[in-house]
Amino acid sequence: MRDLLVRPDPKDPRLTRPVEGLDHEGNRVSASVVVERPLTLFLNGQEIVTNMTIGDYPEYLAVGYLLNQNMLRADDEIEAIEYDEDLEIVVVRTARETNFEEKLKKKTRTSGCAQGTVFGDLMEKFEDIKLDPAAQLKTSWLYTLTKAINTMDSLYLEAGAIHGCVLCHQDKPLIYMEDVGRHNAVDKIAGYMFMKGIGPEDKIFYTTGRLTSEMVIKTVQMRIPILVSRSGFTAWGVELARDAGLTLVGRARGKRFLALAGEDRIVFDADSDVQEDEPKRAGRKGARE
Amino acid sequence: MRDLLVRPDPKDPRLTRPVEGLDHEGNRVSASVVVERPLTLFLNGQEIVTNMTIGDYPEYLAVGYLLNQNMLRADDEIEAIEYDEDLEIVVVRTARETNFEEKLKKKTRTSGCAQGTVFGDLMEKFEDIKLDPAAQLKTSWLYTLTKAINTMDSLYLEAGAIHGCVLCHQDKPLIYMEDVGRHNAVDKIAGYMFMKGIGPEDKIFYTTGRLTSEMVIKTVQMRIPILVSRSGFTAWGVELARDAGLTLVGRARGKRFLALAGEDRIVFDADSDVQEDEPKRAGRKGARE
Repeated sequence: MRDLLVRPDPKDPRLTRPVEGLDHEGNRVSASVVVERPLTLFLNGQEIVTNMTIGDYPEYLAVGYLLNQNMLRADDEIEAIEYDEDLEIVVVRTARETNFEEKLKKKTRTSGCAQGTVFGDLMEKFEDIKLDPAAQLKTSWLYTLTKAINTMDSLYLEAGAIHGCVLCHQDKPLIYMEDVGRHNAVDKIAGYMFMKGIGPEDKIFYTTGRLTSEMVIKTVQMRIPILVSRSGFTAWGVELARDAGLTLVGRARGKRFLALAGEDRIVFDADSDVQEDEPKRAGRKGARE
Repeated sequence: MRDLLVRPDPKDPRLTRPVEGLDHEGNRVSASVVVERPLTLFLNGQEIVTNMTIGDYPEYLAVGYLLNQNMLRADDEIEAIEYDEDLEIVVVRTARETNFEEKLKKKTRTSGCAQGTVFGDLMEKFEDIKLDPAAQLKTSWLYTLTKAINTMDSLYLEAGAIHGCVLCHQDKPLIYMEDVGRHNAVDKIAGYMFMKGIGPEDKIFYTTGRLTSEMVIKTVQMRIPILVSRSGFTAWGVELARDAGLTLVGRARGKRFLALAGEDRIVFDADSDVQEDEPKRAGRKGARE
């Protein structure tokens, strides 16, 4: 499998800005903060939503958002994606005619850092999806992955206040996207996979945020069979994961983790005595974002 | 000023549930996970939104949400608040007739863990608000507050995967609300303040999540002049805070913090040499939620 296809670029000057202020002793200091900007998405002329985003991948964000909202279908033909940086809009045009007037009316505000607005029926198509039972999660891969992800250069390490998600294959990170809103990072990965023809069946999805119902639903809709996070669970997220046959691993820190769904896919091949608990520096800063 | 009015109740059996799974060594274990449930909000017969919430204070959540969305006004007379636990709906009725058909159409999905759907003009009323310049933030209060908040019993310490916000007065926490989505915690505080007649002018708002544009806007709309978080900033959040004259303090851990707006309100009265950096156990777990 290929190596890392997409990784954060913390040195991209558009993504952060220096800001002056005072530290705890009253000294003047300069800090690097993340820049977020609005991006309004249109589908075939219809305004869908405005997202606040760091703006690094507007096209992948647009396509991924539409896919994850079930407004774009896996078999749809995209005729054009037009991004206007000045107007801060992105227009997606498909061969198929679309009209989501009714769907746009029914909104659910979901919980957690994958918080987003889910239009229409949250459970649309969820029940029809079969995740690959033959996919595996070896604990040796898990440890290699989390270590690699935690030590990779990122906007998070550079400026804080950001979420990241990583699509992985076995013990290799493949697509690492960040954004101010986690759902954006998820959607950018979905958009990238769609446009580059990367399949989900044998992949592992790693996220920094909590394993809420919305995060589980998105992962299942993306047909990825394994979801991993450093953070915790919600009861409904666990229930949905079990319904869908998703492998759900949370509180993954150092050598520890907790698997509350789809445990059958896990292969305990790592020697958990030998694995050192993560050194302090490699861990995320002690903050709930 | 009164002592703590509202604090988390991690022992409330409705809020968590034990779930079985496997740990990293393949042992069967039982874990406590947070329970989230949908709550659909109606205003005078019109369906507004469905929120995922832990469900501890549906009435405060409903009123606070409507206030923060500018659908309920500070001078509105609430005639009734009807919560139906079985149907999972809450209806708010006001003397004034309301119709938000147009407003409900324009949605902005905002970033960060205070992610929510902000209807209508994000900046509605924002520019008209004057925050009290005489309000103060003494660093001695800040240290006392963060220590008290970090060590208080909470769902977070019990089960993880949750956000908390605390309205404070000087060095005392007053109203501590938690929820799976941070915006819910903010809204519950707004609802509580409205219904109990607690004023914002001399208060400090503490949040676990990041200081995004939406978090800043909500704090300003609630007319609270000081906002503090352990977490980081976004550039637009800083800009908005400066426009509004909000005191913005982030990356507040142990004795350290960074103030990027409204620095004039800060009184550096604590001896920052003497303050011990926060002990490991008092800090939040090393996770970005």
